[in-house]
Order: sequence, then structure tokens, then C-alpha cells
Amino acid sequence: MKKSLIAASVFLSTSAVANIDAPKNIIYMIGDGMGPAYTTAYRYYMDNPNTKTVEPTIFDELFVGLARTSPDDDTVVTDSAAGATALSTATKSYNGAIAVDPQKAPLTTMLQIAKSKGFTTALVATSQINHATPASFAAHNEYRRNYNEIADDYIDVKVNGQLAVDLLLGGGYQYFIREDRNLINEFKEAGYVYQDDFDKLKSIETLPAIGLFKETAFAYAIDQYPNRLSEMTEKTLSLLDKNKDKGFFVMLEGSQIDWCGHANDIACAMAEMKDFANAIEKAKFYVDNNPETLLVVTADHSTGGLTLGANGHYSWHTDVIKGVKASVSKIAKALINTNNVSETWQAKTAISLNKAEVSTLVDKVEDAKRDKSEEETKKENLVAHINQLINDKSNTGWTTSGHTAIDVPILAYGSGSEAFKGHFDNTEIASKLINYIKK
Amino acid sequence: MKKSLIAASVFLSTSAVANIDAPKNIIYMIGDGMGPAYTTAYRYYMDNPNTKTVEPTIFDELFVGLARTSPDDDTVVTDSAAGATALSTATKSYNGAIAVDPQKAPLTTMLQIAKSKGFTTALVATSQINHATPASFAAHNEYRRNYNEIADDYIDVKVNGQLAVDLLLGGGYQYFIREDRNLINEFKEAGYVYQDDFDKLKSIETLPAIGLFKETAFAYAIDQYPNRLSEMTEKTLSLLDKNKDKGFFVMLEGSQIDWCGHANDIACAMAEMKDFANAIEKAKFYVDNNPETLLVVTADHSTGGLTLGANGHYSWHTDVIKGVKASVSKIAKALINTNNVSETWQAKTAISLNKAEVSTLVDKVEDAKRDKSEEETKKENLVAHINQLINDKSNTGWTTSGHTAIDVPILAYGSGSEAFKGHFDNTEIASKLINYIKK
Repeated sequence: MKKSLIAASVFLSTSAVANIDAPKNIIYMIGDGMGPAYTTAYRYYMDNPNTKTVEPTIFDELFVGLARTSPDDDTVVTDSAAGATALSTATKSYNGAIAVDPQKAPLTTMLQIAKSKGFTTALVATSQINHATPASFAAHNEYRRNYNEIADDYIDVKVNGQLAVDLLLGGGYQYFIREDRNLINEFKEAGYVYQDDFDKLKSIETLPAIGLFKETAFAYAIDQYPNRLSEMTEKTLSLLDKNKDKGFFVMLEGSQIDWCGHANDIACAMAEMKDFANAIEKAKFYVDNNPETLLVVTADHSTGGLTLGANGHYSWHTDVIKGVKASVSKIAKALINTNNVSETWQAKTAISLNKAEVSTLVDKVEDAKRDKSEEETKKENLVAHINQLINDKSNTGWTTSGHTAIDVPILAYGSGSEAFKGHFDNTEIASKLINYIKK
Repeated sequence: MKKSLIAASVFLSTSAVANIDAPKNIIYMIGDGMGPAYTTAYRYYMDNPNTKTVEPTIFDELFVGLARTSPDDDTVVTDSAAGATALSTATKSYNGAIAVDPQKAPLTTMLQIAKSKGFTTALVATSQINHATPASFAAHNEYRRNYNEIADDYIDVKVNGQLAVDLLLGGGYQYFIREDRNLINEFKEAGYVYQDDFDKLKSIETLPAIGLFKETAFAYAIDQYPNRLSEMTEKTLSLLDKNKDKGFFVMLEGSQIDWCGHANDIACAMAEMKDFANAIEKAKFYVDNNPETLLVVTADHSTGGLTLGANGHYSWHTDVIKGVKASVSKIAKALINTNNVSETWQAKTAISLNKAEVSTLVDKVEDAKRDKSEEETKKENLVAHINQLINDKSNTGWTTSGHTAIDVPILAYGSGSEAFKGHFDNTEIASKLINYIKK
């Protein structure tokens, strides 16, 4: 790194922060896997075809910068654990690290700092709440897949003798109610309200509280509860608003944008983006009414190598994607369980197939039915075939089942948002927020 | 488009412009095809592996925003003609349009406005100078491939009775010296200095001038003149500096980032990015010494569906790419013309192949030699095979030989650069610049 660049960057961020009063409340939102192809895609997906212009989205309206995401590892491509650790602790670590440094020593997270300053704190996700991103705000583990140990940390890693997170909403009760330990009972003993029925989200009226609504993660938004993140965001902000005397810190994750990306399932990804966009709208509305609040939105990385346009075609057909009404996995299941493949395909996708395409699809469904392997495995070829149909007909491109290294968007709004304009390392987003929290 | 968003956006841009003195000189640089994957890739490609941190590049340092690029056509994916027309006239048009509206009526370009205000004007490209991007600043045509008609416009479309462009540098003399018309003679009659030898670029010491250094385009930077754009940029700014009494306007294009993208040739793309980056450094240096100057850099679209990471691998190997010393097309040619495929491969790529890979490569070379078709066609399979080797070994992903719809970076620096912070339609970049020119 050139010395002059470092100096300039430090100077800029310090002076920007110095000129702005620290926000009292911080709403931090992470779209897991949400690279710039996703925010671009969402705009065209949402575009009203009856107007001449393409309507900007909330992602465009609040856009202020891009972030670099490479981890401290032997690759430039980060995973969600190293990404979230950078975004929560301002420290680069290795892929798999949950708020620990490259030597596996615990790193203090911004949520923990916020708690130590008396802030009310919250973590919200559509994955299990002990998945990599939320975990990196309140747990410390050498490996992201140690789900039980991470869940334990939500009880065991205290700040000034108190539990660190005042509100947890998401999935994952199988990791909290175990034979060896019942963390939910421990939360209740510590005074937490517990709820496991998402339809009773409204019943949570006081803090501290924990709501774990699924055994592991929520279903994809396209398959069930399309607004689960935006509903949890609204509930969270109303609860935090009652407990904002000393300020609040909340991290809300759109966890499954990434998962749809891993599945190369574009309709699934757009439904997740819609839930995330609606959640950001709720947060923006809160900031509009509580201007001492800062909203920062970013991503940890991009997933799937999504591109809008593929195979030499200069087009990306959102009409095809809009017609798809279930995740590719659910479509495959429905096709295996129907007596009329063509009719079920039409009902689930609204994509017209010619005779040859129908015939091939029927063959693939029959192959899947004959396959004696486990339900998930037997569907694999069929899932790949359905994906190819939707991606080919919409000209959606993908290059990987994993992540890519492209820079990710930063959105900011409200008190102190000026400091996020420009191009930053992901750790700089965290250090700016930590500076605000420490003020 | 929501009414409130339009209002907010208009208010913001107007107030931002109102608070800033209009810059006297404008340096506008367009990286053709340079989507965000290219600027990200370039950072990791240029990273010094001996330092702990990843060094930011000039693209990061000057980054201020993103631009939306969809054309006024039945697709969201733009071509370079509609892209350049939006960037030069603030008007959306159809793919293929050269500064004409959807009804094919001529649109006044910012270069023409600048000329009418007395600015000195220049167009610089590494393609033929009558290719889509530069053409859209000084010609009007219903179709980008009408190269002769476009070249004619550089003489025929006058502003206040004068030729519109005081300096033209690039390739394409075959379109200017034709049996039916010799435009170079007409330029000379109008007082222009002419040069066709790039090694004599320095000999151009006065304006007006035209330098066309190749029959059509320059070779790829990786194959010849790696610094041709940065050298032309330096020359251009020194010539404009002598003629800046009433200000100047110049558009410089990194034309072939796009072409390497179309070829899915990553080493080729990185060499073009390096030339473009060095050209931006020259422009920034000029602004540092002439603070009444505005530098704006953007792209028309992204090309190839480039992704950093592919096929499930969480890595992107820049060491592989750094070892490649020629365009894939040149490597194919060299392999066809060698008696030692393995040795030539090593010399051109530095990529180690195992025995099976060497054997397959030798077979592909032999196939190409046996093929009786034209030189370019016979190489196609071999080119595809070489591309696959380099892309697979570096985990570089591509989804198309065409363009994609992803938003593109905006960089800005110097006088009036504040107005470009945020997320804009590509036409808004043009309208801001036109507003400055009109002041």
C-alpha cells in the first residue's frame, strides 16, 4: 500500500467523523451475498414496464460507496464468516473465523462495545441466528460450523456481567434446545420472553426477548413468509424504540440472498432482495422519524457470479423471472409429486415450453423418481435442469456455486452517513461505526 | 418512477451544481466495458504480494458513484453506441445509435456545445477514432457500423462553421483515406497537422491536429504499445494546456477493455486496464496542477460477464494471469507457427501443464493447422481451448461474449466533482457535464 494513500484515507475518515455528531442509534443491515449484480438486477426486476423510465430502488436512493472484501487468507475471495468478522470487528481474518483473529484469539465486536456503553442491542436474521453473519457480532469461534458452541456464546459471552444481545430474532431453535443444554431455559431464567411461532411475532412486546421461529433457517422468501425480514425489522425497531434511552445497535441480515445465489436460483434471489429492500424501507422510515439514527447497509461478498445477460444475448428477461413462483428446489419437488408435469410446470413458472422441452423435462422428472438415493440427492439433476431452463430463458448468467471477489455496495442514510461516501475496505465500515459507538 | 424520488434527485443535483463553480476544463474518460468486476480485478491483479494489505488503485481512490446504463430499447443491456450517446448527449437511445434519438434525429453532443462556447476540443481512443464511443461525441448516424459516414461527419458536421474537434488521436486511417474521399487531405486543407506513425506522436506540437496510427484499431495493449492510451493522454493534455484560454473538453476512451471482455481474455483485459489506469493517473496529475479542471471517468457497460472466482472455487489466481504475456489470439498464432508447442506455451503463458494437458493442447494445435478455413476461423477452437486453460487455472468466470446490464463505476476528481457522488442514470452524468459546459 502506498504510504500517501494510507495517510489520505486515515485523514479523510478521521476528519469526516470529527465533523459529524455521532449518531445515537445504529441500524446495520447486511445483505449476505448481495454484490452489485443483485442490486442492479433488483431494479430491472422491479421496474414498472408501463413507464418510460426505469424507477430507482431504495438501493439506488441510499447508495454512497463500494467496499473491498478480501479476507486475511490465501485467497481474495471471502466467505461470510471472515466477511462478517471484518464488518463487526474491523479486523481481517481467515475464511471460517467467527470474530476471532488469524491466531484464533477473540476480537471484541461492535455489538459488544455497544452493550458496554449501555446501548440496547439486537441481532436479526432469516438464517439460524447462530449462522456466520449474526454469530460474528456476539460469539467467538475458530470455525463457523460449530453451531452449538456459537449458540452457547449468546449466553456465555457476557458484557459487564450481562447477556450481550437484548433481542434475537431468526431461526435455529434446534441449536438452542439440545439434549446437553437448553439455552432457551437459560434465556428465560435471565428474564427473556421466548417465542417460536412466527405468526405470533406481534406477541413479543418487551425486551429482553428471543424469537427462534424455525428448527434451522426460515424457508426461502419465495416459498413461505415473503416478508419475514421486513416484519422482523418493523417489530425490532418498535421494541428498540421503547429502549433507546442510551441508544441502540441492531444488525439485521438478509441471510438468504446468498443461499439463492449458491443455488444459482434467480427468482429465489429476487424474492430475497424484495424482502431485504422492504426491510431497508422500514429502517429508512425509522431514520426519517428519528434523525439521530444512522442506517448503514452493505454486503459481505457477492455469490454465484450472477450476470444480467448471458450466452451472447444482449438482454435480461425479467418477465420470465417474475413468472416463477417457487424456489427451484420446490419446483423440482412439485414436479416429482405431480401426475401432470406440464400443468405443474406452468403453474409454478408460467414459462411456456415447446414439445421437445416438455418431453425432456418429463424424462428428467422420471429419472428423478426412479433414483433410489435420498430425496435431496435424487433431485439434483432435475434441479440443475430447471435452473438451466429458467436461466437460459431469462439470459441469467452464473459462473459458480460459490462466492466471487467483486466489490460490494454501501448504502448509508441519516446521522453520520456522510462518512461512508467513497471506496473503503470492509474493515473501514466497521471502524467508522465503532468510532461512533465509542463516542 | 416515484414522484418523490424524482423530486429529491433533481433537487440534489441542482443544489450540488449550484454550490460549485463550473470547472473551466473537462477531462472525460470512458473505459469501454469497464464494469465493477474489472476495477475490482485490477486491484487484486496489481496487488503487491509482499505487503500485508491490498493496495487501493486509482479507481478506488477516485471512486464516487455508480451509473445505470439501460438504453431506450427493448432490452436492459446497452451497446456501446447507445451507451456513448447517453454519456455524450444526456439522451437515451436505441442500441446502435450514434448521437441520434430513437427517431434517428441528430442530438447535440457535449463536445459540440463545448466547441460552440469556444472550448478547445479533443477525442482520443485506442479503437479506430470513428468507433461507437468517440463517434457519439462528434458524429450522428443511425447505425454505428457506417464507419465511412461517421468519419465524414468529423469534417462535415461543423459548429459555427468550424470543424468541431481540434485534436483527434487513435486508429482508423482506412476510413479517412478512401477511394471516394480523402478526409486527411481535407483536414490538412483545414490547417490540421497529420501524423500516422505512433513512434512520432511527440512530433505533434500544435493544434489543430489529427493522428491516426493504425489502419483500424491499435493492437491490444498486451501485444503492442502497452502505454498507448497513457502516452496519447499525456500528449493530449500538453497540447490542450497550450490552448486552454477558453477552456477545453476532451473525451479519452480505453476502447479495448471491452474487446478483451468480448474475447473472454482476462490477461488482455488487465493490460488494457493498466493502460487506462495510467492514463487516469496522467489526467489526475493534470488536475492537481490545474485545479479549475474536472476529471470524470466512467464506463458505458460491462462486458463478458466477468467474475473473480468460478466453478465453486473460493479463489482468483492473479499469479496465473500475470504470467500471460500475449492475447489469447496471439498465443494461438504462435502455437500454430511453432515446432515446439510446449516451449512456446511456457514462453507465452508461464502456465505449467501436466502431460495430459500438453497432449490435448498439441492435438488442438494440430487440428488448427489441418483446418482449411481462413486463418481467423481455423484458430477459433484453439483460442477457445487456450481461454479455457487460462480461465480454469485462474478461476476466472465469464458468462457471455456480449455485454451485461450491471451498473458501472463513476470516478470524479477536481473542480465540480462533488456533483457525481451517488447513484445516477448515465444520462445524468452527461447532463451535469453539459450544465457545467453551458455556464
